[in-house]
Amino acid sequence: MAANSFGTLFRFTTWGESHGPAIGVVVDGVPPRLPLSESDIQPWLDRRRPGQSRFTTQRREEDLVRILSGTFEGHTTGTPIQLLIENTDQRSKDYRNIADRFRPGHADYTYWKKYGIRDYRGGGRASARETASRVAAGAVARQILGPGIAIRGALVRVGPHAIDRALWDWRQVAENPFWCPDAATAPRWADYIDEVRKAGSSTGAVIEIVASGVPPGLGEPIYDKLDGDLARALMTINAVKGVEIGAGFAAAGLRGEENADEMRMAEGEPVLLWNNAGGILGGISTGQDIVVRFAVKPTSSIPKPLRTIDAEGEEVEIATHGRHDPCVGIRAVPVGEAMVACVLADHLLRHRALVGT
Amino acid sequence: MAANSFGTLFRFTTWGESHGPAIGVVVDGVPPRLPLSESDIQPWLDRRRPGQSRFTTQRREEDLVRILSGTFEGHTTGTPIQLLIENTDQRSKDYRNIADRFRPGHADYTYWKKYGIRDYRGGGRASARETASRVAAGAVARQILGPGIAIRGALVRVGPHAIDRALWDWRQVAENPFWCPDAATAPRWADYIDEVRKAGSSTGAVIEIVASGVPPGLGEPIYDKLDGDLARALMTINAVKGVEIGAGFAAAGLRGEENADEMRMAEGEPVLLWNNAGGILGGISTGQDIVVRFAVKPTSSIPKPLRTIDAEGEEVEIATHGRHDPCVGIRAVPVGEAMVACVLADHLLRHRALVGT
Amino acid sequence: MAANSFGTLFRFTTWGESHGPAIGVVVDGVPPRLPLSESDIQPWLDRRRPGQSRFTTQRREEDLVRILSGTFEGHTTGTPIQLLIENTDQRSKDYRNIADRFRPGHADYTYWKKYGIRDYRGGGRASARETASRVAAGAVARQILGPGIAIRGALVRVGPHAIDRALWDWRQVAENPFWCPDAATAPRWADYIDEVRKAGSSTGAVIEIVASGVPPGLGEPIYDKLDGDLARALMTINAVKGVEIGAGFAAAGLRGEENADEMRMAEGEPVLLWNNAGGILGGISTGQDIVVRFAVKPTSSIPKPLRTIDAEGEEVEIATHGRHDPCVGIRAVPVGEAMVACVLADHLLRHRALVGT
Amino acid sequence: MAANSFGTLFRFTTWGESHGPAIGVVVDGVPPRLPLSESDIQPWLDRRRPGQSRFTTQRREEDLVRILSGTFEGHTTGTPIQLLIENTDQRSKDYRNIADRFRPGHADYTYWKKYGIRDYRGGGRASARETASRVAAGAVARQILGPGIAIRGALVRVGPHAIDRALWDWRQVAENPFWCPDAATAPRWADYIDEVRKAGSSTGAVIEIVASGVPPGLGEPIYDKLDGDLARALMTINAVKGVEIGAGFAAAGLRGEENADEMRMAEGEPVLLWNNAGGILGGISTGQDIVVRFAVKPTSSIPKPLRTIDAEGEEVEIATHGRHDPCVGIRAVPVGEAMVACVLADHLLRHRALVGT
Repeated sequence: MAANSFGTLFRFTTWGESHGPAIGVVVDGVPPRLPLSESDIQPWLDRRRPGQSRFTTQRREEDLVRILSGTFEGHTTGTPIQLLIENTDQRSKDYRNIADRFRPGHADYTYWKKYGIRDYRGGGRASARETASRVAAGAVARQILGPGIAIRGALVRVGPHAIDRALWDWRQVAENPFWCPDAATAPRWADYIDEVRKAGSSTGAVIEIVASGVPPGLGEPIYDKLDGDLARALMTINAVKGVEIGAGFAAAGLRGEENADEMRMAEGEPVLLWNNAGGILGGISTGQDIVVRFAVKPTSSIPKPLRTIDAEGEEVEIATHGRHDPCVGIRAVPVGEAMVACVLADHLLRHRALVGT
Repeated sequence: MAANSFGTLFRFTTWGESHGPAIGVVVDGVPPRLPLSESDIQPWLDRRRPGQSRFTTQRREEDLVRILSGTFEGHTTGTPIQLLIENTDQRSKDYRNIADRFRPGHADYTYWKKYGIRDYRGGGRASARETASRVAAGAVARQILGPGIAIRGALVRVGPHAIDRALWDWRQVAENPFWCPDAATAPRWADYIDEVRKAGSSTGAVIEIVASGVPPGLGEPIYDKLDGDLARALMTINAVKGVEIGAGFAAAGLRGEENADEMRMAEGEPVLLWNNAGGILGGISTGQDIVVRFAVKPTSSIPKPLRTIDAEGEEVEIATHGRHDPCVGIRAVPVGEAMVACVLADHLLRHRALVGT
Repeated sequence: MAANSFGTLFRFTTWGESHGPAIGVVVDGVPPRLPLSESDIQPWLDRRRPGQSRFTTQRREEDLVRILSGTFEGHTTGTPIQLLIENTDQRSKDYRNIADRFRPGHADYTYWKKYGIRDYRGGGRASARETASRVAAGAVARQILGPGIAIRGALVRVGPHAIDRALWDWRQVAENPFWCPDAATAPRWADYIDEVRKAGSSTGAVIEIVASGVPPGLGEPIYDKLDGDLARALMTINAVKGVEIGAGFAAAGLRGEENADEMRMAEGEPVLLWNNAGGILGGISTGQDIVVRFAVKPTSSIPKPLRTIDAEGEEVEIATHGRHDPCVGIRAVPVGEAMVACVLADHLLRHRALVGT
Repeated sequence: MAANSFGTLFRFTTWGESHGPAIGVVVDGVPPRLPLSESDIQPWLDRRRPGQSRFTTQRREEDLVRILSGTFEGHTTGTPIQLLIENTDQRSKDYRNIADRFRPGHADYTYWKKYGIRDYRGGGRASARETASRVAAGAVARQILGPGIAIRGALVRVGPHAIDRALWDWRQVAENPFWCPDAATAPRWADYIDEVRKAGSSTGAVIEIVASGVPPGLGEPIYDKLDGDLARALMTINAVKGVEIGAGFAAAGLRGEENADEMRMAEGEPVLLWNNAGGILGGISTGQDIVVRFAVKPTSSIPKPLRTIDAEGEEVEIATHGRHDPCVGIRAVPVGEAMVACVLADHLLRHRALVGT
């Protein structure tokens, strides 16, 4: 069980609520003698940090990480690594009005039905704040993967507006507040998100993560297939409603010869043309780029009034003010990268166990 | 690990290759005193069985299941249940020509890279034949869920042809060889699949599974969310490239008030309007129908010649004759149902452990 | 994996080194709505706390526990519970002299061989300090078990001196610094431990844990038998070299009719006479007292000089001064109780999942 | 969960009842390209096979193993290996008289209390017949360990009669029906077992398993310590009531300097003198021989009448005739070896994952 744990050999366990004293993650199964200090983790957390533009929540969290265990003189020791992040900017009074009524599209109702008790402050455990712990774990995973494996994410759609893939330029991703790889689309997203925000609403988005340099052979058929683990990893991120690999849902519309990646040799190495497979066949990496996408629904907590019920079963209205992301998909980009890193680190270790390299 | 196992409390382990003497599954964690005999399992296997129409592979397998353990006088005893299915119609010589060359879009290459050895006969372990074991496990899961929970699947798209959802009629599903819920679309699929088959090609498809009667509260945040487990369950089925829940990828195009299911009372029970959530919020079931869809790529083994390489790295051509499904998505319907049943049975037991009902 | 985790449904993960900033434990799988605050945990930690008599280490740790997550208004919420204990009395300079040489009987050598790096300060992760986290987890387990199940431990042997079982009186356990249930033996142990301590040596011990009120039916054959899990739980405590259940090793000397607990009815309930089984048959609890014993070796870190080698393979001598327990078995009593509590809580939840009560 | 599974990376799942059509085991996590055919497994099964002398049960089972999956052309492929053993000599009518009454010291009562249903024929799932599956899994484990690691077992005590350790000669083990390493003791055991058998009784025993050639570094602190996993592995064998490592319970009687293995160099390699640690320190192998012992209680099913109760709670008598081992400890020797092999194979893979060699 351990529903708050993820991974098999490289395995992390997160804990903490949005408005508790702290959140954190224990990372177990990390090989010894890898360099690791706070400065290896903090930059990744900074990318996810709220309050960096008007397009994300205005909650101000430093998200400073502290390593409490598992390292010695700047290196991992093979023992569990506890990473702790204090919560510093909770405003719990913002949430009093939602203590007894359920925000539509939010986990309020289901937590209450399941547990009969819930920490409603800031969404408690269901808050996207938990994803900071994932990003911290992902930073450790990247130390295992090493510099040869690059994991990068981008936003490829916001509401009705998709990027033009012909204009994809990874350098653009750092040049706008949306991780948008297409310079022409970024300003259109700015306008659209401003519009929905001012309308008291929110918007969904699609994120794409690409992992390059992954060697062939990672993944464990049948039930621990690399794509199965990636699907679970991404689907457990808050607000995600769909995951696809390579051609994804579009593959349903293709014919066999259009979809099956033909193989050729290039510089002595096998290449799968087109990469419709998204770098995975039979649950095992092919050596091509691993390409996954996931859909994030629009933020459920919006100022616009919605009809709902309360804990007594009365039909009421609710409008959520607080400080919320108008497009929660934006901050999901570094989270998606982190989850992909964790899945790959786990399978790298598993592969090494089985075949010894 | 145990990459060939699935589930936590209700947990099954499959084994067997396409052309070995038999395949099977051990199902562990089954509560005692449930009625279970071969007649509870065989009908589900019969639905997945090949060779039932010209739209599926002509391999002739009886797929007769035998219970070797775990029951006594027609009831489960709480001990592991071994279900065995003999392979009776292997024609291994069909596969000689693919022993040394890799079928594009198939697991041939990745198994070879990972393991350095592979049983190429009929795809070995990577064959869709493994899914018979899943269906058998799913039949046991249904005994745990009981008659109050109905899990039904349908094909909703074949290649470019989607159903008309306004015409959805569950009774139609049994009336055509495609599990098509829309009587008007079924004949169009027949024409389309005939066409691709005659052209030596194949087609992809989308399947939808609906689970009704699921009580609210099932699912374990954070990493064992119900939707995370469903995503992994379905993504591990052969040829699946995408999974979505409820509104799925379409949610990315919606605004907050369009997506968030408003709540009202109906006959004393909370109802989530629209069910864009697909019956799951925060990883926990809402009590509404659980709705998941998955995309299946076109069969990779096709008669049409494709360019590929062989084990020596030579560039060659390949044309796969054998007996293959022109639309592997058709037989994926009962498999998808089975996997959803297994996930739900597991979470039903987990929920009972945690909250005692 | 997750080698630092224990349990299946009730599952905890410990982290932290002896001389790091803190140690702690995440407890997952705890049912919601149980009362839990620091005052439910602290008393159990206080029993294990060092420095309470001249018979234990003089390290002065307050061992104050803080709950960082998983509770709301004094009750569990079903989310993971992080318990944190700061280290306040590390004197790392004491350990400089052992940084490069291996203490005989200690984990110094094996950690160095396995990991190639080790935090030698205070034994790092291998320190018995880790057991404080187990005691904290055990306190949570007791909240799950409820007041009907009592778990009590006693020291039954120190070096060559065993108790007289005919004089067993549970009330005596709190009346001496050894958890000795036999008032006549306690002063003899005081003399013996004083003697070995003054001689710069240490002594081994045997602990017995008794769990009363455990309902019949707990335990999962075959590999998760209740006794198997107890054996692992106790064997993983620092310095433990043997575990036995009921008659234990003495059963090897018995005949069938001497060992097999005959059954009679008493007040309408089945009773197993003699309880040689120690409350477990076929891996499942019988309803009688569960009785387990474990042997603790003498503390390896002693002032008396011993021959050893250093990291360069030179043969050297070592004498460990620092602040060590002359009989580490004494403080193992509350640790053993905690581990038994954790195993029982886990199996209580597992049993509920399987049979629904 | 998966209570019928054992191991983490090298992981096996057993199934089957004593009087069902077959028993078996699925072995998962086996590296590819290892030689494996029935002839690598059968000899180990033959050593455990019943009916080989008058000192074991007269049930006649061939125990012929068939590999149903996971190999190709005599080598492992990395896919799960199903090993099947048919039951050929069940005489279920022997057990009619125990269908409703509980044999003292047996799992009859606890299975009935837990599950409310049980296959009473031959002990069903609780039968020692299950251990044949363990031996089969152990044979696969030995292929992973390779010829450099030798795992050997011996009986060291039967009832009150212990061997003389000074006379230990491994070659003697194959020269008598008891795996006795001391030629002088074997005939005394023959007399003793004949006596208890004729008296309608049975006797307990102690088994010692020694693993030589195990490299230092295997084992995962804290909760997956090598000794913790060995303790669980051996305690789950039928009728085992105690497990100890190295000096074991005797360590409780020692002083620090007597117990702590001093270290010296021998031929350039570190040596731990005395090996009181039994080859394990801090849960990690030292490179010395791993030495474990376990105590087996006398067979509970004996012809001598015992007092018991029946399912209606009536006080009755029972005498078990059937075909039972007068000293079940004898056939536990190959089972203990197999479990040690499985634990070591698992940790070898885990170590390779973590540190890459």
